[in-house]
Amino acid sequence: MKELKEALLRNAALTESALEESLSVRYSGDTVLSEAMKYAVLGGGKRIRAFLTIEFCRLFGGDEKAALPFASAIEMVHAYSLVHDDMPCMDDDDMRRGKPSCHKEFGEANALLAGDTLLTQAFEIALRNPWVSDRSRVLAATALASGAGALGMTGGQYYDLADQCDSYEELVRLQRMKTGALIKTAALLGLYAAKDAPVAEDEENIARYAHGIGFAFQIVDDLLDVRSDSATLGKPVGSDAKNGKKTILTFLTEDEAEKLAADCTADARNALAGYDGAALLSDLADYLLHRTN
Amino acid sequence: MKELKEALLRNAALTESALEESLSVRYSGDTVLSEAMKYAVLGGGKRIRAFLTIEFCRLFGGDEKAALPFASAIEMVHAYSLVHDDMPCMDDDDMRRGKPSCHKEFGEANALLAGDTLLTQAFEIALRNPWVSDRSRVLAATALASGAGALGMTGGQYYDLADQCDSYEELVRLQRMKTGALIKTAALLGLYAAKDAPVAEDEENIARYAHGIGFAFQIVDDLLDVRSDSATLGKPVGSDAKNGKKTILTFLTEDEAEKLAADCTADARNALAGYDGAALLSDLADYLLHRTN
Repeated sequence: MKELKEALLRNAALTESALEESLSVRYSGDTVLSEAMKYAVLGGGKRIRAFLTIEFCRLFGGDEKAALPFASAIEMVHAYSLVHDDMPCMDDDDMRRGKPSCHKEFGEANALLAGDTLLTQAFEIALRNPWVSDRSRVLAATALASGAGALGMTGGQYYDLADQCDSYEELVRLQRMKTGALIKTAALLGLYAAKDAPVAEDEENIARYAHGIGFAFQIVDDLLDVRSDSATLGKPVGSDAKNGKKTILTFLTEDEAEKLAADCTADARNALAGYDGAALLSDLADYLLHRTN
Repeated sequence: MKELKEALLRNAALTESALEESLSVRYSGDTVLSEAMKYAVLGGGKRIRAFLTIEFCRLFGGDEKAALPFASAIEMVHAYSLVHDDMPCMDDDDMRRGKPSCHKEFGEANALLAGDTLLTQAFEIALRNPWVSDRSRVLAATALASGAGALGMTGGQYYDLADQCDSYEELVRLQRMKTGALIKTAALLGLYAAKDAPVAEDEENIARYAHGIGFAFQIVDDLLDVRSDSATLGKPVGSDAKNGKKTILTFLTEDEAEKLAADCTADARNALAGYDGAALLSDLADYLLHRTN
């Protein structure tokens, strides 16, 4: 685990530099709009998605520099989704990662535009990746669009807002779309950074791994919301119940949920069993299962 | 002009079919979100941007079928920008093309998500264009991102909202970014649909043409707002003055503006003087200059 924690920090630092370059004046101009974009994306989060992109690139023999533009792109898409989700007409959250959310800091119009522009620029950065072939660029940008669109992230957010989730199966589908799709994309981007003629079996194993860690991540989130305290968690606890939000615990007991998260994690690890050099990615699965915040 | 009007109708019909395919269940699912996307993009507008993509593709010897996915993509980006611009935190417009704007019809959350998803899916459709090479896909999707981003469309919308436009030069820059950049992209997409090793001189001539028609279009818009009546124009007149909006007529007399629009149109025509088969595109420049709505 020590090695994983070092790798997380190292990759997060690499990603931060890549993001700064991706958001430089050359691409973003020099206005309040670009400030809002930087506010939303720099300096925050664990960079799990970027980690997946970088480490899957390494696993398939690619150079980390080829992964970094894709890692930037996936973090920009993730950041845009948080900016728009926080807006008053969506989840109406005033705080994000311990600071005012983007629309509280810059106003709604700038937040809306900053989100739009982060999404747009994510594609530009991925498509201008100088270290890969056109085929890799197309594979990556297509995966980004399909993970972030109506059958992925925004589709999941739609179901979440529409609150049409009446069964365990529907909740699983919602979470698979809302958060799982982009986690899968992050991992696939690593493969595409390394290879421009990827093998379907590798894509399937990656999807299985990503699904396992993504689902376990969400279950642990739901468990922490009822079990943790706000000092450890870094945000209010019990908010799901307070907001009447359906979670995995609407349908399963805590024990069942805990067992399911462990099973998903084991399945994620198994998906990578046939690959040499996947230790860090296997450790990540365990780390996400046992995290306390 | 008869030939142009027929070509406009024919290309608009081709674009409509391509958009329906681009927004089919396969890409958009089958929810209120996909309904909102269709509401925003189908059945509306003159499809000038799609026309540019299709006709520039033809001009450079390409097949129209190769242009259609790019034409869809540019219209989806244009439609997303209208959905977000109409929202209460931006321009707060209740009506669009004679019907309730997207957020009036579907609520703000769905409108926000529909805009996000249209933008995302525009990239997917362009990147999945089955009739062109990976190089063409990358050229087109990169042009789309750069025309729609901080140095193009959303950057222009930012300046418009920030209302920092104190001189003629600043207004020209704003309009060049807010509307001109996407018009240029539309024309370039046609070139990239036809050629995957485009010549810089062709790109420059296209940019000059697009700048000419785009600027003339905006000037004519401003003139119609003071000169037309709402029955002819299909929307309220005098709205710029009422909203205290700076237009070209803040800085120029009507006569000066009229002369400038004619000069821009002539320059657009000149940019294509060296190409055989550019008659329709030259006619389009005149048509946009003399339009009454």
